[in-house]
Amino acid sequence: MSEDINSIPHRRYNILTGEWILVSPHRTKRPWQGKTEKSGAVERETYDPSCYLCPGNTRSSGEKNPEYKEPFSFVNDFSALLPDSPKVEKHDGLLIAETEKGICKVVCFSPDHSLTLPLMEVEEITKVVQMWKKEYKELGETEDINYVQIFENKGAIMGCSNPHPHGQIWSQLSIPTEIQKKTKHLKDYWEKNKTSMLSKYLEQELELKERILLENEHFVALIPYWAVWPYEVMILPKKHYQHIGQLNAEEEKAFAEIIKKQTIMYDNLFGTSFPYSSGIHQAPTDGKEYPEWHFHMSFYPPLLRSATVKKFMVGYEMFAGPQRDITAEQAADTLRQLPETHYSKS
Amino acid sequence: MSEDINSIPHRRYNILTGEWILVSPHRTKRPWQGKTEKSGAVERETYDPSCYLCPGNTRSSGEKNPEYKEPFSFVNDFSALLPDSPKVEKHDGLLIAETEKGICKVVCFSPDHSLTLPLMEVEEITKVVQMWKKEYKELGETEDINYVQIFENKGAIMGCSNPHPHGQIWSQLSIPTEIQKKTKHLKDYWEKNKTSMLSKYLEQELELKERILLENEHFVALIPYWAVWPYEVMILPKKHYQHIGQLNAEEEKAFAEIIKKQTIMYDNLFGTSFPYSSGIHQAPTDGKEYPEWHFHMSFYPPLLRSATVKKFMVGYEMFAGPQRDITAEQAADTLRQLPETHYSKS
Ligand SMILES: O=P(O)(O)O[C@H]1O[C@H](CO)[C@@H](O)[C@H](O)[C@H]1O
Ligand SMILES: O=P(O)(O)O[C@H]1O[C@H](CO)[C@@H](O)[C@H](O)[C@H]1O
Repeated sequence: MSEDINSIPHRRYNILTGEWILVSPHRTKRPWQGKTEKSGAVERETYDPSCYLCPGNTRSSGEKNPEYKEPFSFVNDFSALLPDSPKVEKHDGLLIAETEKGICKVVCFSPDHSLTLPLMEVEEITKVVQMWKKEYKELGETEDINYVQIFENKGAIMGCSNPHPHGQIWSQLSIPTEIQKKTKHLKDYWEKNKTSMLSKYLEQELELKERILLENEHFVALIPYWAVWPYEVMILPKKHYQHIGQLNAEEEKAFAEIIKKQTIMYDNLFGTSFPYSSGIHQAPTDGKEYPEWHFHMSFYPPLLRSATVKKFMVGYEMFAGPQRDITAEQAADTLRQLPETHYSKS
Repeated sequence: MSEDINSIPHRRYNILTGEWILVSPHRTKRPWQGKTEKSGAVERETYDPSCYLCPGNTRSSGEKNPEYKEPFSFVNDFSALLPDSPKVEKHDGLLIAETEKGICKVVCFSPDHSLTLPLMEVEEITKVVQMWKKEYKELGETEDINYVQIFENKGAIMGCSNPHPHGQIWSQLSIPTEIQKKTKHLKDYWEKNKTSMLSKYLEQELELKERILLENEHFVALIPYWAVWPYEVMILPKKHYQHIGQLNAEEEKAFAEIIKKQTIMYDNLFGTSFPYSSGIHQAPTDGKEYPEWHFHMSFYPPLLRSATVKKFMVGYEMFAGPQRDITAEQAADTLRQLPETHYSKS
């Protein structure tokens, strides 16, 4: 029966958001004559004098970056959120708005302009994890910061305007939509079952092994059953942790290690520096208890068939709901067969 | 107070979906060194022998298009949904799925390969509107078709693989997520106020005039207060109609006329054939009553600053929620100042 459903058009339920994804497994053979992307595999210098993220360079704000040797964070020169917005609420008939406060930061992963996460050493990525922990804690403890969104846009196709290895953190007063949805469904499950929904889900996935990509002592990387993007991946801690602040030194390293392996897998898929947006979803920092939360890092990569053909989330997807062609299981099979060494080193 | 809120970071509430949009008006001056698109303003022939949508040509299914002179529709050769999927439900622990049925169609707007909606005559667009009506009715009356999504992906940047003027219709058994959200909020309002929420909203907008772009006897085009995309537009009928099936001949023409004017405005914005996904949201066709529904057509265009610089809905937007830089009012001001004649004809 499970096989049946996987070969005909079906919908899968996202247990975290309560939304459905349309899967069209028979449609994989659709020809593509549409837009392609440049493959853009350009070797970069380790230092670029025109890069505003390289050590020692001056940013557009006029500030000069220190000669940093480890991950370096600073307040975004073009922050979408500002810490000092006055509180104004507008409720004028059907026009409803309110001011929003927040702090936006940039996190440089490495001083080396030419690197990306899969090309960094586990020790270096561990320092990025430690920086995320520190920022989550410090921002989270700041007054009026109730949620901290850590993310990375990688690749020009994902709106990244500078190839220097870096991510961002947008933290804010209100709890964003995606977090509200996930909190609701995690909480419903927690209240009914007094156990983490994602622990239970992980148990089931580890038994089935159909969608598991990588596993170490503390983490698992898998394609979620309800994945939207063709090669979407979720990295889950085995322990039921609400947020990354709870990781100990060994777990930080295990997290770094699985991130490295996962991003190497991605680069090897199409022999390209694989674009994606990644993000960590975790408990809000508003001081309330969130026993139901189970933090996880997700990767949403746009590529579908090659380094140049992506999946477009357009018409139907925008107006009705997400749709995918290859199944989560097909994607997992493809990814699992890839070599463990980065293609540029073999 | 309304002015205050519009110049500082704020969130606006989407009354149709119950979700919030982050607006960062101060961020417009952010420099852009990232990805740009080709401007791609290529003149096309009226007939292309290699186009599978042109009259008389053979499609990849082997079928031959008729020598159509008016809008022409057919079942998609690569349908994401199929009408004969057997009913299977899967509920295995936290893995939940069910088969889905549906019919996907392609609608060629014109036999002329070189046209787009803004370049077609009002009379020709009226025939497209009539075709949409016919399809909504016929598909809607088909067994197991409970929702009919009419949409157009225009431009390569929106995943459109063929420039021949055409749209699509995906119709299906289940009610898609976006429609469920809108139905909920329209219904809540209807039950409380016994009036259409969108009629009330339109009244307020027509009084304020801040976000109105175009108006004729039967329709209004405006930038919704909660717009996500930089130049997002909504076309609303003045009468409280649940679906396009209710339009009379005069209203069909008024709809066609406002679509033409709106798409000319778009093309004139950056002097390019303006890409977008558009779609019509309307009452489900499951035989139930939907007095709360008020149909509307929306345009989600990706361009932000020029024919080559788009807004990326990536990291923060994917993980937290939508964000925009220019306000809806700024976008409306800009659009209103454009000439009424298509740039290619002046
Ligand atoms: O059906 P088409 O035009 O080949 O495909 C396009 O529209 C579909 C419906 O929005 C999307 O699923 C595809 O990603 C997009 O490329
Ligand atoms: O802040 P950046 O890197 O300039 O901008 C990028 O990420 C932001 C957060 O996801 C998006 O709002 C922008 O559209 C994108 O281009």
